[in-house]
Amino acid sequence: MARRQASVKDVAALAGVSMGTVSNVLNSPDKVSEPTRLRVEDAIRKLGWSRNESARQLRAGVSHSIGMVVMDIANPFFTDVISGAERAVEERGLSVQLGNSGGRVDRERAQLRLFEEQRVRGVLLAPIEGVADYLLQLHRRGIPVVIVDRAGDDLDCCSVSVDDLEGGRLAVDHLVGTGHRRIAFVGGPGSVKQVRDRRLGAELAVGAVPDAELVVVPTTRLEVGAGVAAAEQIAATPVAERPTAVFAANDLLALGLLQGLITSGLRVPDDVAIVGYDDISFAEAAAIPLSSVRQPRETLGERAAALLFSEIADDEGEHRHEHVRFSPELVVRRSSAAPVGTHRRGGPERRTGPTARGRARS
Amino acid sequence: MARRQASVKDVAALAGVSMGTVSNVLNSPDKVSEPTRLRVEDAIRKLGWSRNESARQLRAGVSHSIGMVVMDIANPFFTDVISGAERAVEERGLSVQLGNSGGRVDRERAQLRLFEEQRVRGVLLAPIEGVADYLLQLHRRGIPVVIVDRAGDDLDCCSVSVDDLEGGRLAVDHLVGTGHRRIAFVGGPGSVKQVRDRRLGAELAVGAVPDAELVVVPTTRLEVGAGVAAAEQIAATPVAERPTAVFAANDLLALGLLQGLITSGLRVPDDVAIVGYDDISFAEAAAIPLSSVRQPRETLGERAAALLFSEIADDEGEHRHEHVRFSPELVVRRSSAAPVGTHRRGGPERRTGPTARGRARS
Repeated sequence: MARRQASVKDVAALAGVSMGTVSNVLNSPDKVSEPTRLRVEDAIRKLGWSRNESARQLRAGVSHSIGMVVMDIANPFFTDVISGAERAVEERGLSVQLGNSGGRVDRERAQLRLFEEQRVRGVLLAPIEGVADYLLQLHRRGIPVVIVDRAGDDLDCCSVSVDDLEGGRLAVDHLVGTGHRRIAFVGGPGSVKQVRDRRLGAELAVGAVPDAELVVVPTTRLEVGAGVAAAEQIAATPVAERPTAVFAANDLLALGLLQGLITSGLRVPDDVAIVGYDDISFAEAAAIPLSSVRQPRETLGERAAALLFSEIADDEGEHRHEHVRFSPELVVRRSSAAPVGTHRRGGPERRTGPTARGRARS
Repeated sequence: MARRQASVKDVAALAGVSMGTVSNVLNSPDKVSEPTRLRVEDAIRKLGWSRNESARQLRAGVSHSIGMVVMDIANPFFTDVISGAERAVEERGLSVQLGNSGGRVDRERAQLRLFEEQRVRGVLLAPIEGVADYLLQLHRRGIPVVIVDRAGDDLDCCSVSVDDLEGGRLAVDHLVGTGHRRIAFVGGPGSVKQVRDRRLGAELAVGAVPDAELVVVPTTRLEVGAGVAAAEQIAATPVAERPTAVFAANDLLALGLLQGLITSGLRVPDDVAIVGYDDISFAEAAAIPLSSVRQPRETLGERAAALLFSEIADDEGEHRHEHVRFSPELVVRRSSAAPVGTHRRGGPERRTGPTARGRARS
């Protein structure tokens, strides 16, 4: 483990005074005798202790915040994770301070650096990609980090995540199970591990059915607009080659697909079924409610905060990192609900049966 | 104007030394002669200067962040405002740190207090309600504040806002203009000024048409779930008394209404037309695209940040507070598009004409 920075306690011990005396030296030096003051200042220098930062903490008690950096604050998935974390952090009388990396590594670093300067008690991080070097730096400063929404087995910290490979498989198992054979995967960028895992799960599900195939429609972002663009691309495909179902890497893409397909005159789910990922509240609230792979969003945040507090509270060095992985759950709604050949209220009979799908593959 | 706290410059001037010497006294006292050190420490005490906080700033240069507190981070309206602010703040090489008050005054205060402790360069605040006392405290600390999404004419700071009364009037003018006479206003809580203004605008629009009336359906929150509940209430109303159109105080409510009305077997816009507020991206992305009153969301954030930087840069005390008010714009989409008696693709002929509406009022 990285060495913790010297604490006020260490300074007090070395100088042979109480912590209150250290505080006085920093904040009300006239209350302290000259020899004592010199002894404390000597201890501070010897320990290389950052007197200003710690003075602030002494004065304010300790820092009252947990820092949290997410990839896209405009994605309701993350605001739900935040909501769970806020609840857990508030129960302990602290506040969450948020940073939005917006998918950019430089911004992620800048946000982490701010939290480091402010000496937050701990950091919850939904990272973009490689974070190992920065984690090391935060550890060295005595600031624990929990990785959120990405397995952190390879990192020296706790993590909470959802099994995205399993999620991708669930989504596409459902689609092949309802008769679809030509299925599009819409998602990207591939640098996001969650996207890679969801796609891999989709490939496994399609691979298990001899006549099924996966058409990959890459996107550069995980946003509504990218879904609309993908829908236009799908709608422009000759009907014989057009996928009859789409699995989107997140619900923002799925909502854009829904909008784009309808605008193009296609019917959902009759012409193209859709399954999204995350089950954000807008998925259910869509006028054609979206099927989606549900992640325990608030629980992710709550559990991450709990792990963080357990590490913060560990004075004895007994903390062992945990990697908590949740299983996702498929929620089937109207956007993919109709099994081939059945009739449902609000959605006319599906025109495309297994035969039609077989043809579509040619 | 509130008195600014003494600066390092003031300390240096009073002690008759350079700012670098003050910095040395704080960070490397062994580099400074004893008489100089005593003189600087004396100046610090005389000015009541907070040595620890300012030492931190000296060491780190200055704070690299702007704090921003919003009412509901899960509302895409606010994440768009944040996005605009982030762009403007980033252009100046700083970062935005976010706090979510979640509509609770105690959390708003806690977030502001953290920003104050961290000595952010300035604060952007989308406030819940009365903030005057806290503003005063931040001013006293030399931290400028810009109020976002609420007129701040009554406050000693800059503000950017949108004319919500005008927005409410635009929405309901459109509804009465397309033949609706019994219109519901869905929104709340009334403690939120934006809600009160939008409702007042709606009342003015209805008041201008002799046989039109506004039915108020109060909600306790501005969220999707509250919209679903309001829809159930509206759907349960006997058809003769049921509003033929709804103006929702924000798009989250409108999306919930859309979902709830459809689940109840009503058609949008044929049975009930809907107009929302904010024009978040999900409004357009809804499968029945929502009409909405568009606010210049990103521009609000950008402009607020620009006003903040102009105040931060003002060393000469020449800054004068500005109150920038934008005009909203109505975007008509399918959820309210069909003028009475016309036929549109994707939406069958409207059943309810002016006569039917007249009847509905009885």
